[in-house]
Amino acid sequence: MTITAPRGFRAAGVTAGLKVSGKPDVALVVNEGPSDVAAAVFTTNRCKANPVLWSERVLDDGRARAVVLNSGGANCYTGPQGFQNTHSAAEQVAARLDLGAVEVVVCSTGLIGEQLEADKLRTGIDAAVDALSADGGPAAAEAIMTTDTRPKEAVRQGNGFTIGGIAKGAGMLAPALATMLVVLTTDADVDQATADAALREATRLTFDRLDSDGCMSTNDTVVLLCSGSSGVKPGPNEFGELLRDLCHDLAQQLLGDAEGADHDIAIEVVNAATEQDAVNVGRAIARSNLFKTAVFGKDPNWGRILASVGTTDAVFEPDRLDVAFNGVWVCRNGEPGESRDKVDLNPREVTVTVDLKAGLAAATIWTNDLTHAYVHENSAYST
Amino acid sequence: MTITAPRGFRAAGVTAGLKVSGKPDVALVVNEGPSDVAAAVFTTNRCKANPVLWSERVLDDGRARAVVLNSGGANCYTGPQGFQNTHSAAEQVAARLDLGAVEVVVCSTGLIGEQLEADKLRTGIDAAVDALSADGGPAAAEAIMTTDTRPKEAVRQGNGFTIGGIAKGAGMLAPALATMLVVLTTDADVDQATADAALREATRLTFDRLDSDGCMSTNDTVVLLCSGSSGVKPGPNEFGELLRDLCHDLAQQLLGDAEGADHDIAIEVVNAATEQDAVNVGRAIARSNLFKTAVFGKDPNWGRILASVGTTDAVFEPDRLDVAFNGVWVCRNGEPGESRDKVDLNPREVTVTVDLKAGLAAATIWTNDLTHAYVHENSAYST
Repeated sequence: MTITAPRGFRAAGVTAGLKVSGKPDVALVVNEGPSDVAAAVFTTNRCKANPVLWSERVLDDGRARAVVLNSGGANCYTGPQGFQNTHSAAEQVAARLDLGAVEVVVCSTGLIGEQLEADKLRTGIDAAVDALSADGGPAAAEAIMTTDTRPKEAVRQGNGFTIGGIAKGAGMLAPALATMLVVLTTDADVDQATADAALREATRLTFDRLDSDGCMSTNDTVVLLCSGSSGVKPGPNEFGELLRDLCHDLAQQLLGDAEGADHDIAIEVVNAATEQDAVNVGRAIARSNLFKTAVFGKDPNWGRILASVGTTDAVFEPDRLDVAFNGVWVCRNGEPGESRDKVDLNPREVTVTVDLKAGLAAATIWTNDLTHAYVHENSAYST
Repeated sequence: MTITAPRGFRAAGVTAGLKVSGKPDVALVVNEGPSDVAAAVFTTNRCKANPVLWSERVLDDGRARAVVLNSGGANCYTGPQGFQNTHSAAEQVAARLDLGAVEVVVCSTGLIGEQLEADKLRTGIDAAVDALSADGGPAAAEAIMTTDTRPKEAVRQGNGFTIGGIAKGAGMLAPALATMLVVLTTDADVDQATADAALREATRLTFDRLDSDGCMSTNDTVVLLCSGSSGVKPGPNEFGELLRDLCHDLAQQLLGDAEGADHDIAIEVVNAATEQDAVNVGRAIARSNLFKTAVFGKDPNWGRILASVGTTDAVFEPDRLDVAFNGVWVCRNGEPGESRDKVDLNPREVTVTVDLKAGLAAATIWTNDLTHAYVHENSAYST
């Protein structure tokens, strides 16, 4: 049931013909209240897609009633006509649902630099409104997929309230969000400040720490709608922790479906002077094509890890660095440690641990290996 | 003749057995003076290889008489024993040539994280001293190759003086140098300040603007030896321009031999507010795996370029950006421009032009595409 598991929400996913595959491509999520509290986080890319430019305005007042999403076209770098298409979509949803256009978030995903087929989108939105139902979450999750091989969905149960979420994203998983669209719903009665703080913290610790290929998207949006219809006011910690747990679940689903990946890699940076140092070191490793190809080749190549650590300004001494693959400390104090032969990189899950010996902070960055399939998919598929 | 084209130099390249292939792996270059002026630029990686740690000390006084180089092992992350091996190599060269050890630069390239076979290196150095000759430049160029498919050599003739150079490097071509070793020689009579300034400027504008895979090496060294034996004191501009031209030639040879590349890509960023803005934008594009795989797929995907530009803090307006592939302006003012169909990405040479419309500065970054062969070579070959 995902995003329709919390009370007060209806959703739909329909086929509008924007995708040449003929698969579902328009989704709609509606918050029926009583509350219209909302929060969102967007890509930090300065070259943003039109739906992001629009939706940032919608969220200015921390309120939203509906999210309309399309796959089959990112509506990005499409100029004033593209912005107009986004605006029209919001107006159409608003007219059909008796809302204001500024209560309607718009998200798009697909090819960059081409105009959406406005007629098809219009027909799709009408069909989606007609199809809205209290169990439409899974259909919406399916309609936002692009190169995803499976829908991403999660639900968490709190004390008297529920949080649900759907996500899409398979490539371009990167800093400050991935090419991802995420819709989160809850029937908890939370105020806007609580919703916003909880969403930002959850995003910071989950989606923001995915770095599949270092490429930052133009359309990333994570939006949280709060209906308040459970009548339950959870404590901010309870709500925030549950939201974070759900976002972690969705983030791991995104990681597990990353384009062409053979390995899911957790890079744990421990004993850092600061959390930011740990994040920076983890990200530098996650972005090393040499490290990522080595994991693809099942080679526990710690030298490439040290070379990446050395590009950062984190606090550490080169001759004190330790590195482990799956708990085998192949590098001790910047020199060869345990035998590489003890490391088995056949399983999909890989954990790299880097001990900076500079403090007490830690962070984990998740990434994938760099494979032939990644090259194939991204050289053959235009995004 | 390359590095032995200028008067006052002898060189050699021999086989010491450090490479399992049995190919030449120890090179020696000796400056017979009268001048011993030298300058060098090293990797900015904080996790440096032992030969870099040693050679930085050698260059402290701006003087050097010899460079000994080995392939078949980077002597990197090998601890105190590794440093001792580097030091011993310098002492051995010095003893055989009646120099001080602090006059001997040491460079190593090959696998990281394994001790060099010191016995073989010692035998190789003796053989190299015995083989020194006034036409040994090409043999030295061959002995420093690793995954290079061909030696890189260049010579430039000034007014009464000559500059020669050899280089190696095929992967890890990256910021602030590549995995490259470069030895430059000249018989010009230049003082240390002139040599140093000319080398830094030439490096900044050539080797530093290669960014093949964004990975910074641990062993990079560019060293210039000046014998003064021509007796000619060129003006600093004449010397600097000729040196830069020669370094550009070597850098293009490195680019053309990058591991697994199908395309050589020049990213020209024009009308930037500052040169640094232009460099930052060019580098962001050069590091986008999505852009690089698109070029491999012969897809003039300007959307991925704009998405990379948007990750920088350069001065620009998203809706004023223009992008061309090989002179075809496929993006105008952040929207689709000329038809992508006009772009032919079959030839190896690709020029991407990004017009920031923010000022008068410009810079070019050179990179390669991301191919199946890159993934293969770097997953199968441990460095």
